Amino acid sequence: MSSCRTDVQHFHCRVDNRIAQISLNRPERKNPLTFDSYAELRDWFNDLPYCDDVDVVVFGSNGGNFSSGGDVHEIIGPLTEMSMKELLQFTRMTGDLVKAMVNCGKPVIAAVDGICVGAGAIIAMASDLRMATPEAKTAFLFARVGLAGCDMGACAILPRIIGQGRAADLFYTGRSMSADEGERWGFYNRIVESADLEGESMALASRIAQGPNFAHMMTKTMLKQEWSMSIDQAIEAEAQAQALCMQTDDFKRAFLAFTQKEKPVFEGN
Amino acid sequence: MSSCRTDVQHFHCRVDNRIAQISLNRPERKNPLTFDSYAELRDWFNDLPYCDDVDVVVFGSNGGNFSSGGDVHEIIGPLTEMSMKELLQFTRMTGDLVKAMVNCGKPVIAAVDGICVGAGAIIAMASDLRMATPEAKTAFLFARVGLAGCDMGACAILPRIIGQGRAADLFYTGRSMSADEGERWGFYNRIVESADLEGESMALASRIAQGPNFAHMMTKTMLKQEWSMSIDQAIEAEAQAQALCMQTDDFKRAFLAFTQKEKPVFEGN
Amino acid sequence: MSSCRTDVQHFHCRVDNRIAQISLNRPERKNPLTFDSYAELRDWFNDLPYCDDVDVVVFGSNGGNFSSGGDVHEIIGPLTEMSMKELLQFTRMTGDLVKAMVNCGKPVIAAVDGICVGAGAIIAMASDLRMATPEAKTAFLFARVGLAGCDMGACAILPRIIGQGRAADLFYTGRSMSADEGERWGFYNRIVESADLEGESMALASRIAQGPNFAHMMTKTMLKQEWSMSIDQAIEAEAQAQALCMQTDDFKRAFLAFTQKEKPVFEGN
Repeated sequence: MSSCRTDVQHFHCRVDNRIAQISLNRPERKNPLTFDSYAELRDWFNDLPYCDDVDVVVFGSNGGNFSSGGDVHEIIGPLTEMSMKELLQFTRMTGDLVKAMVNCGKPVIAAVDGICVGAGAIIAMASDLRMATPEAKTAFLFARVGLAGCDMGACAILPRIIGQGRAADLFYTGRSMSADEGERWGFYNRIVESADLEGESMALASRIAQGPNFAHMMTKTMLKQEWSMSIDQAIEAEAQAQALCMQTDDFKRAFLAFTQKEKPVFEGN
Repeated sequence: MSSCRTDVQHFHCRVDNRIAQISLNRPERKNPLTFDSYAELRDWFNDLPYCDDVDVVVFGSNGGNFSSGGDVHEIIGPLTEMSMKELLQFTRMTGDLVKAMVNCGKPVIAAVDGICVGAGAIIAMASDLRMATPEAKTAFLFARVGLAGCDMGACAILPRIIGQGRAADLFYTGRSMSADEGERWGFYNRIVESADLEGESMALASRIAQGPNFAHMMTKTMLKQEWSMSIDQAIEAEAQAQALCMQTDDFKRAFLAFTQKEKPVFEGN
Repeated sequence: MSSCRTDVQHFHCRVDNRIAQISLNRPERKNPLTFDSYAELRDWFNDLPYCDDVDVVVFGSNGGNFSSGGDVHEIIGPLTEMSMKELLQFTRMTGDLVKAMVNCGKPVIAAVDGICVGAGAIIAMASDLRMATPEAKTAFLFARVGLAGCDMGACAILPRIIGQGRAADLFYTGRSMSADEGERWGFYNRIVESADLEGESMALASRIAQGPNFAHMMTKTMLKQEWSMSIDQAIEAEAQAQALCMQTDDFKRAFLAFTQKEKPVFEGN
């Protein structure tokens, strides 16, 4: 029985009711990422599969903004001086954060207010569900800093969320996607007022956390696993994955609750 | 010359004008699926490539509902008692229904009224085209019965229809997708009033059945075949597939009709 | 230092300010494609990676229409007489045009007015960004001429832009997609009035051309390259691709401009 680390330095983290609520912790600078916060987030998500006290993660905003992405002075400056060996080490570390989020086995909800750009937009993209306020400005602005849209998996993942044409628009122009566009395009699942963002994202997290969390883990695993499978391979993979879920007690609990006209209480096993 | 079986027990089936119209036949219980109806539907779709009298299938609603999915008493109860061997046999059978629909070589139109949940939603998803009424309530509600969203290919197929973020929302929450959402998200091609559902779905089927049905079969084949190909592989595959269609008489018929300012009459060869 | 060929016979081409503006040149017949224009376009796009004077391509309309697709008399007629060897030679040539567009290394913007059907719709689809007028009528009408939707990569590419269900609708019915549908579905990035189409598409091209064009080339490369990769493969591929972009001078230029509170001037290296 292992618990989630909450004594982190480079972001906020608290765990309550099986929900880990995290956010970046430099609101005065719109929450930029640094080498340290990248690494600590990566390690935190890498540990998450083994944390028995967390079922859902809410990656929230702080001080009215989600994240301004890689810090210009603390990241971009040093990168312009690095050798290829060091650069690849960096881009692999950032990619490893996305891998860790995708592989963490627990649904991640991004709750986006204000600025959500660069690596911040990537973190939102790598989440499973996304909620935003009307003020959210989401930009895959890599072109604006002289880089390519292919950052941390964006050219593979973003087109599957919003379609290839809209992703290309965002990558080549670096422009902001408005909250309304984000909802219309399927990036944001829902738009809520800024004052309601924390409450609504926690309510959604709570609803999901009350679900069958072993099964949720399989859903998350298979959404990744089937990414590049053929239809036939995916169907066989799901036959195995779902048969496995049918041997959980949660499946029995749901059936018993139904026969007793009650609401099932899932325990995640 | 082989004909489509219409003497089926566990669903309705009639064939008219080269269109097979099927629907589940337990409207008093909102058309649940049973072990028997799964198996019979699988066998029926598996036979379909060899049925020369059917060009298009309409999978319709009955009594105001499409399907309530796997019957709680006849399927879910027994599943909670099964060994892994039996469970895998079951999940493979349900997956085989989706494979049979995808491989049947004829466009399948789902005409959805009312309840369309669980395996019912999967059947709609595995169809090629979908029409619904404003009353349609479509839910991939597996989480609500303690299971994972990865059922019968859903984690591979649904994201390609409505996008990864919206699919994740439906899987993790188990919530209903409204008809309006379904249309906005690309799940439903069209919303029609309940009174018009059968007429409009049959009219669409008729329009498609009057098309070049050998070419339609190739379209369906390639939509599946290219699922996990690279772009270059897909383009070569289509060069071969389309060259093949260019040697059909239907292609000549279209050209001749054009030169004579007539509407082509296709014969599916 | 190689320049883009503008002395072409079967389409218009002019290069100005690093933007190549091309369009088909038979407006009196709504710009059909012929064997010659297919081949010349293919060769032109195949040469494009080596043309140092072009960063962005605008494939525009002419005389109020984009393209009516393969000419009925000059292409479809002859095809009905061909051997399989000749047919495959033809379908591979058309597929090679799409491959050449996808591999050309420079963003292609389709600016669509009026008729955009058959191979014309494919050219719009194979572009990176798409703009249209309210009068645009876009149809993957292959079924209407007795052929399959799997033409030049359409069954692989179109579903990734507008979703599998909407693509199936267009393929099986051959119906027109309106400009409004095209925008709602993510095919068209923007709708502009006919009088503004050239100006707006050139303005977008100019904005993109002022970006970091080496990085744009990597974005285009990776959007293709990652098509059928797993998420993990895509993330590693992007770690390499982006590390490479971080060694360009454009990346340094952006950082320097930022520190000097100026707008970066990119040079594409």
